[in-house]
Amino acid sequence: MIVEKLAIVGTGLIGGSFALALKQAGAVRTVLGVGRNPASLDAALERGLIDRAVDWAEAGQADCILLALPVGETAAVLKNLAPHLKAGAIVTDAGSTKVNVVATARAALGDRFADFVPGHPIAGSEQSGPGAARADLYQGKKVVLTPQADTRAAALATVNALWQATGARVETLEADLHDRVFAAVSHLPHLAAFALVDELAQRADGDTFFRFAASGFRDFTRIAGSSPEMWRDIALANRDALLTELDAYVAALQALRSAVSAEDADALRAIFSRAREARNNWVHKKS
Amino acid sequence: MIVEKLAIVGTGLIGGSFALALKQAGAVRTVLGVGRNPASLDAALERGLIDRAVDWAEAGQADCILLALPVGETAAVLKNLAPHLKAGAIVTDAGSTKVNVVATARAALGDRFADFVPGHPIAGSEQSGPGAARADLYQGKKVVLTPQADTRAAALATVNALWQATGARVETLEADLHDRVFAAVSHLPHLAAFALVDELAQRADGDTFFRFAASGFRDFTRIAGSSPEMWRDIALANRDALLTELDAYVAALQALRSAVSAEDADALRAIFSRAREARNNWVHKKS
Repeated sequence: MIVEKLAIVGTGLIGGSFALALKQAGAVRTVLGVGRNPASLDAALERGLIDRAVDWAEAGQADCILLALPVGETAAVLKNLAPHLKAGAIVTDAGSTKVNVVATARAALGDRFADFVPGHPIAGSEQSGPGAARADLYQGKKVVLTPQADTRAAALATVNALWQATGARVETLEADLHDRVFAAVSHLPHLAAFALVDELAQRADGDTFFRFAASGFRDFTRIAGSSPEMWRDIALANRDALLTELDAYVAALQALRSAVSAEDADALRAIFSRAREARNNWVHKKS
Repeated sequence: MIVEKLAIVGTGLIGGSFALALKQAGAVRTVLGVGRNPASLDAALERGLIDRAVDWAEAGQADCILLALPVGETAAVLKNLAPHLKAGAIVTDAGSTKVNVVATARAALGDRFADFVPGHPIAGSEQSGPGAARADLYQGKKVVLTPQADTRAAALATVNALWQATGARVETLEADLHDRVFAAVSHLPHLAAFALVDELAQRADGDTFFRFAASGFRDFTRIAGSSPEMWRDIALANRDALLTELDAYVAALQALRSAVSAEDADALRAIFSRAREARNNWVHKKS
């Protein structure tokens, strides 16, 4: 048993899977659920993700509280929760951006900020909701924690232990580096996929194009099936790093365009070869 | 039996799978293989993709000859083959672009151009070579034929019947529309994936980025594992349509950049929602 009472704010894929994994590992005794959406809480109860649906006052009495919501809701949730936090209660989050969440938590929690452990599990899916939750979602996946200089060591150790109990591998990064890395390898690809699909969908003859799209298109655009609300929040929360990545990407596309336009066969082959080699190396290291 | 003797120029994934499927369907009696690469022909023989490796003179005596090579090699292959074509021999191809291939075939084949049936099976993989060939590759997949006004009807009917025997669904498009459609749904996504991976790989701290890349990145970039030579040829062969698509895509990314920069939450949500809906509709229709 790592903590007696865990509260989950947002009982969807991320929060629900965290709860399921910890229950299965015997790492928590009771899981409380909080959320705006009664249907979602009912579904979470029915699927056994949570033991009880509670209000903010009761959630604040938990030993650890996980926020698993679009990052744009962090401020409002912490404002609701802050007056009710019991002494020693640890708050952590699963948001996809960290600099913004850290600033929001510092403002909302005041002198309780030391008990806030910023986190980001690298395990998502274009699926969402309580129905998508599963106990093995985090098995072998990375979780990045971005503790601050004033984060309480015991709070960090507890959150670390909880994630390890889900089967995840915990890593620590500076919040700023976290945001730059994920702007490049996650946020930009999502925006690039959304932009490609929307551009086609806006065409008067878009149906003709979609009709011949095949498996390459399917995989390239899988992430364009993700939650619009979640990605709107991420784009806004990680605005500066994302703008930098968008500019770098557009520059890379313009360089490729120049090579195509000039019919520069060697330049094209060089870009494609380097990309294939880098990707193959990455796949090889991952497996 | 649709044809007695089939010759395959390029016994890799595409050509080898065509041969395997037709043998299995009893649609051809003998499969001949031609290619520059002796190791590839040996592998094709060993795997039973072809019955014999032959030279251009013997390949020209086949009833039907499929070119399954990067489109940049079409001119050289047809030049080798043209002097040896027996009366009534049908030539077809599996190239990813069609306007360019049609022009090349018209120039190389002269008055035998009526026996050339331009084709494009929409079934690939980032894998390639004889070892990747399988009899069911085309099962349920689309094959696009782009016959010209002077294509002989009997030649078209034979190629159509062969593809249907592989389990594919045959559709007909104008060559120009084919190239515009595939520039958008296939060629652009490939270039976009190559550009993204190469841009990261070129960074001094690229390893840090790749280390945290996860499943979204993996799927988005799967097609960046494709053959550099094949994609160089496609980019050059479909240059004009691809430049148009690159410009439209960069414009869509710039529009998204403006929305991020202006923190326009509604615009971002609208783009992401339209993209998700369009993709979900597409996936639904496909299945």
